[in-house]
Amino acid sequence: MVRNALGRMIPEEIDGRKLKPFNGAHADHGGGRKAAPPIRAVVDYENKLKASLDEAIEACEIKDGMTISFHHHLRNGDHVINMVMDKLAERGLKGLTVAPSALFPVHEPLVSHIESGVITHIEGSMNGPVGKACSLGKMSKTCILRSHGGRYRAIQDGDLHIDVAFIAAPAADSFGNCNGMTGPSACGVMSYALADSQYADKVVVLTDNLVPFPNYPWVIRGGNVDHIAVVDKLGDPEQIVSGTTRITKSPTRLLIAKYAAQLVSDMGLIEEPEFSFQAGAGGISLAFTKYLGDMLRERGVKAAFARGGSNKFLVEMLEEGLTEYILDGQCFDGVGIRSLRENKNHIETDPFTSYCYHEKGNFATRVKAAVLGATEIDLDFNVNVNTHSDGWLLHGIGGFTDVCDAYCTIITAPLLRGRLSTIVESVTTVTAPGETVDILVTERGVAVNPARTDLLEKLKGTGLPLKSIAELRKMAVDIAGEPEKPEFEDRIVALIEYRDGTVIDTVRQLKV
Amino acid sequence: MVRNALGRMIPEEIDGRKLKPFNGAHADHGGGRKAAPPIRAVVDYENKLKASLDEAIEACEIKDGMTISFHHHLRNGDHVINMVMDKLAERGLKGLTVAPSALFPVHEPLVSHIESGVITHIEGSMNGPVGKACSLGKMSKTCILRSHGGRYRAIQDGDLHIDVAFIAAPAADSFGNCNGMTGPSACGVMSYALADSQYADKVVVLTDNLVPFPNYPWVIRGGNVDHIAVVDKLGDPEQIVSGTTRITKSPTRLLIAKYAAQLVSDMGLIEEPEFSFQAGAGGISLAFTKYLGDMLRERGVKAAFARGGSNKFLVEMLEEGLTEYILDGQCFDGVGIRSLRENKNHIETDPFTSYCYHEKGNFATRVKAAVLGATEIDLDFNVNVNTHSDGWLLHGIGGFTDVCDAYCTIITAPLLRGRLSTIVESVTTVTAPGETVDILVTERGVAVNPARTDLLEKLKGTGLPLKSIAELRKMAVDIAGEPEKPEFEDRIVALIEYRDGTVIDTVRQLKV
Repeated sequence: MVRNALGRMIPEEIDGRKLKPFNGAHADHGGGRKAAPPIRAVVDYENKLKASLDEAIEACEIKDGMTISFHHHLRNGDHVINMVMDKLAERGLKGLTVAPSALFPVHEPLVSHIESGVITHIEGSMNGPVGKACSLGKMSKTCILRSHGGRYRAIQDGDLHIDVAFIAAPAADSFGNCNGMTGPSACGVMSYALADSQYADKVVVLTDNLVPFPNYPWVIRGGNVDHIAVVDKLGDPEQIVSGTTRITKSPTRLLIAKYAAQLVSDMGLIEEPEFSFQAGAGGISLAFTKYLGDMLRERGVKAAFARGGSNKFLVEMLEEGLTEYILDGQCFDGVGIRSLRENKNHIETDPFTSYCYHEKGNFATRVKAAVLGATEIDLDFNVNVNTHSDGWLLHGIGGFTDVCDAYCTIITAPLLRGRLSTIVESVTTVTAPGETVDILVTERGVAVNPARTDLLEKLKGTGLPLKSIAELRKMAVDIAGEPEKPEFEDRIVALIEYRDGTVIDTVRQLKV
Repeated sequence: MVRNALGRMIPEEIDGRKLKPFNGAHADHGGGRKAAPPIRAVVDYENKLKASLDEAIEACEIKDGMTISFHHHLRNGDHVINMVMDKLAERGLKGLTVAPSALFPVHEPLVSHIESGVITHIEGSMNGPVGKACSLGKMSKTCILRSHGGRYRAIQDGDLHIDVAFIAAPAADSFGNCNGMTGPSACGVMSYALADSQYADKVVVLTDNLVPFPNYPWVIRGGNVDHIAVVDKLGDPEQIVSGTTRITKSPTRLLIAKYAAQLVSDMGLIEEPEFSFQAGAGGISLAFTKYLGDMLRERGVKAAFARGGSNKFLVEMLEEGLTEYILDGQCFDGVGIRSLRENKNHIETDPFTSYCYHEKGNFATRVKAAVLGATEIDLDFNVNVNTHSDGWLLHGIGGFTDVCDAYCTIITAPLLRGRLSTIVESVTTVTAPGETVDILVTERGVAVNPARTDLLEKLKGTGLPLKSIAELRKMAVDIAGEPEKPEFEDRIVALIEYRDGTVIDTVRQLKV
């Protein structure tokens, strides 16, 4: 075991792979060469349309131990991952690695495939039951969690080699050109599957909406697709477009959102020439978006761009002219999907362009203010979004560590959650290093990372209740007391990989 | 020397590189792996905007013997290639390889850089004076000509490694996102530079039109760009949008176009479910497009798509509803550029999607009827578009061999050109193998490749004057006599590379 730059102990090697300990957020300068996918020839792709999913699977010649990938734009409405993994299990395959961009509660059936040894390894985010299975040590290999940008990087750099990618496509043509804009399973943006399509040895497109050639935009290019299979249903539309996009009604959370908006304003960011922002689809983030919109309207200012997760509040800003563009990474509601399809200034982006650390710049670094939630934050501003303070691994990273490259990264969180302090001495799991986290906003006060003296300077004269993070923690502990720490076994069940491919932390098996 | 599948003698090795002799149009099934570009990190790309072109060049650390690439969407209006090569010459560099997608008469100044040893090798199409210099043996290495798809393939597969790509961008933002749609040097489509941006070690964008971020569509992605330099002028707008898009007035050529359109009709292609076509911007092709449009209008039929080079005749068809889409590879006039910018069914394509042989299918194979010109065609239907019958290398391949993958490839040409028969016993240089060329249309008759018995079947009962190609040749020779053959030196000055990377023919130094 070696100690990484944050003091976390990292094994030198795991499952036969040498690990690189985290060494600082921007210490990595690249090097080496990208993965080199196999060269195919047009002559072998005269008819890609297979009679069934079974025929497409058959054509892929999947073997024990291979790596199978999926994207998660259908979220908790996805039927594809279960459908494909059931078929692979029926074929008697064992020891498979599943590499989804993320798993959701709907993917609970995978747990039985884990228990039967069909799946022995997961590289991807695990929201809910599969994360729980991981916490219980049900897989023989150590899971790897990556951010959206980190996943693109890992595939691009060859760290994560995909044998067969199964891509759920809400609209596809017979050449394999795909997008998520139309059809019964429309999800809007579907670009998390981009790296899979570019680098996997074999690529299967599944669709329930075969459209005439050419299907444009071709978010996934047919020139990267081996086989196309038409299935009855990709998923459950009610669940694909999640119901999360409601502004919080909690006065505490509304206050936090208001503080965050005032903070952005008080730092003078709104008036800067190319103001831009990113906020998620959680209740506080949506309220922040609304308050920010109000400010832009009052001052007659237009943002250069807003980064999505798009939702109706962001779309209203675009349509009202409060932002010039939405640069979208996923659509959280039907309004977002409709806008993406119809509004030429609502642009689909992908994890290469947006988030990948191993490219020549990305969009994340151009965002002025990013507002994110967290499950824990510690005195060094390290953030945990993966494990709960009871130790269960229940969440993926999403774009978290990538978004933290914004000029000003703001964490919004209530001081207490279920009588537990959000601020801890040291986070259970480090997802993002404190050096990339700039400000914590709670209902009781705002703490600026002392390393950001430039932001502290900008905030001179603010009416916001500025505190140190230690003061905020003390307030919380005075109310709720010190939380109990979860007990772990020695065994490491998951690695939290930083966006540059180093290991920032590990997750241990839970003692239950 | 070894004999390739067409009986042409090919050296086993040239300039230290082993050559693969052409072995049939669809004999290649891929294999091996694509090129693996270097891995860079975001942290090193905080400001890509350089103060000048010199500063950008300085940052690239160009050394003797390196390979420098360019695209040719500015055609004969391009100032960039001369500008950059002059600067590299001033810096005292020698032995450079220039890898443009094509050179034009405007690039004649490169001849002096060839004579002084700044440039010793060219991999790319050479239209005009630089081709002449090649024919005269002025370069120490053997030039390589490739089709648009062949060039993408060569870069993708690592056969053509580019050290520094200079990309002329009519519109670019400070992140390096580029397209050709706006600005004083607008050229419309600019995707010939795609492979360069993806695979070159270093990528410099030159623009005379720096636009606000995000510049969308990002045909060239900023994430692939190292440096951006603003220059006064990329080129001469009058020459960028060439004046070639005029329908022929020659009664002979109009008759050829009429025959070609009737041929497409008589084969029943127009009524097939997904009719599509491609025709160039030459006089006969434009007349063909017009006649075909008339037929579609009369019959109330809409083409699924037309492939560009776009021009005002094609755009009129799109706007009238005679084709659902234009899938465009380059814009030949201002109307094409305007339509690309404004019409969502006018779609920019790139050589990967359109033409590359080493991918999982491409658009070329989905085209029903392609109409192309030729300088020579022989009794085996082999076509020459590179050399004139006097032996001078004066033309590039363009998309010729790629387009020949259409269901029905039709060559249109007058029987005689300047008292020389277009049909020869054996072409001076083979650009495209006869097995991919289906029909020759002349003003005196139409010859179908006897291998296409299916097309002959479809043409039963046609009123067109069907002849054998030998009969047509006899007619020509009876009028004009046997042409004199050019005399060549032994030295090979250029290779004609087929789209799969094999060598289909060589060009020898001209005896003058």
